[in-house]
Amino acid sequence: MKLASFIVKKRSCFGLVEEDRVYDLSTQYPDKPDLKALLADLPDIRAITSKLSDAASYQLDEVQLLPVIPNPEKIICVGLNYESHRIETGMPEMQHPVLFTRFASTQVAHGKPIVRPHVSEKLDFEGELAVIIGRGGRHISRENSFQHVAGYACYNDASIRDWQMHTGQFTPGKNFDNTGAFGPWMVTSDEIADLASQTVTTRLNGEQVQHAAFSDLIFDIPALIEYISTFCTLVAGDVIVTGTPGGVGVKRKPRLYMKQGDVIEVEISGVGVLRNPIIKES
Amino acid sequence: MKLASFIVKKRSCFGLVEEDRVYDLSTQYPDKPDLKALLADLPDIRAITSKLSDAASYQLDEVQLLPVIPNPEKIICVGLNYESHRIETGMPEMQHPVLFTRFASTQVAHGKPIVRPHVSEKLDFEGELAVIIGRGGRHISRENSFQHVAGYACYNDASIRDWQMHTGQFTPGKNFDNTGAFGPWMVTSDEIADLASQTVTTRLNGEQVQHAAFSDLIFDIPALIEYISTFCTLVAGDVIVTGTPGGVGVKRKPRLYMKQGDVIEVEISGVGVLRNPIIKES
Repeated sequence: MKLASFIVKKRSCFGLVEEDRVYDLSTQYPDKPDLKALLADLPDIRAITSKLSDAASYQLDEVQLLPVIPNPEKIICVGLNYESHRIETGMPEMQHPVLFTRFASTQVAHGKPIVRPHVSEKLDFEGELAVIIGRGGRHISRENSFQHVAGYACYNDASIRDWQMHTGQFTPGKNFDNTGAFGPWMVTSDEIADLASQTVTTRLNGEQVQHAAFSDLIFDIPALIEYISTFCTLVAGDVIVTGTPGGVGVKRKPRLYMKQGDVIEVEISGVGVLRNPIIKES
Repeated sequence: MKLASFIVKKRSCFGLVEEDRVYDLSTQYPDKPDLKALLADLPDIRAITSKLSDAASYQLDEVQLLPVIPNPEKIICVGLNYESHRIETGMPEMQHPVLFTRFASTQVAHGKPIVRPHVSEKLDFEGELAVIIGRGGRHISRENSFQHVAGYACYNDASIRDWQMHTGQFTPGKNFDNTGAFGPWMVTSDEIADLASQTVTTRLNGEQVQHAAFSDLIFDIPALIEYISTFCTLVAGDVIVTGTPGGVGVKRKPRLYMKQGDVIEVEISGVGVLRNPIIKES
């Protein structure tokens, strides 16, 4: 099933997406303040479907989508996790995943603008698979890792390249306001039978700029969950943004940055298409 | 004034600390769910004092202190921000602050144990000044920066050195559960007339291991606030952990790591003493 967070009638809600309609589940689960609370102990599709006849529903274009998880406790991003991207950056092979973080406050919903700041012209795209945690835990083994995955979504880890490289730590360039696009919805893991064969594709103004299959991930999802949960407790709604394939704008000749008027899309097969216009900071 | 977050009678509260008593302000400000909400528009000392006669109060040792801000939206840590520490690490001078982040879920209150994980023996201390944001904002100038500072507290940015150096990004070693000690309270900025002349001192089992004055900060508080607010919006309760002076355990000969049974203290003159025992992960 597809689950989304949204605002309707000035109220923050979460719900089930079916074709072009969204069913408000938040009134059906009044003890769940938000989608991440639902994911902690996700009811099965039959339990949820049984509630739909009583749920208010809306056309998708009537509601204001939010980032899939607007308020994750943690957003952990993986760098250099495709060989094609590692090679283009000239970085050595790593024994461990390269991890950096993004603040929840930097996120942007599907359809909302990614903002190019006035301090830089180097706004780059990074199409990625986001893994959303359901059941929490620490010291999760590879073998048990998928029991902790609630689902998947598209993420655009848009980056300000010069600020990313101000020092050895990526933090500033990965945390400009209105740069982390996350949507339009998540698809629960039971619907993606063969994740490794699914693909991520990034398109800038309709032209493909990145493409890879998840079988190309250097550190796969079990490896990431095992490593991360060694140091911290994963909880429902945490987001692991699994890395971007080769083709980023900063490594192209000539360089290809995003500017006002552009439209950037991240498509994951079996999941959906995340689309954002680019505007400049006012 | 001194402000703290704590639990009493199973309820999360915030309050004013005077000598060995804490006055529960959360019942006096029912529209403020937590201390960070109070800091967004901090009442002056007279407004708060006028409410104390009606406030429940407790001996400090009757309540369970929480990290000063248990739930900051952002914790931004600064690396290599004292010349003494930069030189001991052998790192070059930086044009920009080195920033990394810590998840709120990794924090520890005053008096609670910092946990040495079973995957590493390299648990190191980092005594630091934490700056707590009051009024939020973006694009805050140096000149206006102190208008956005609510107050100061002691922080121990305890680090797992081998995991910090797994890759170029510090994230794992700075985000083990139960390693970010923050307390016992914050002192509001109006009480610290001359911050630059105040000092931070770290003591391991009573012996001084770090000591510096804040006049030694390479990037001072106005510089940090200006730089950070260029990329993201600071909000009430955000914490800037301003960096640690020379003397860390990993750069000593012989190396000096923390182990079960140790007690680590971070003292900031005019603010207080943060004390934590060390235990090993169970």
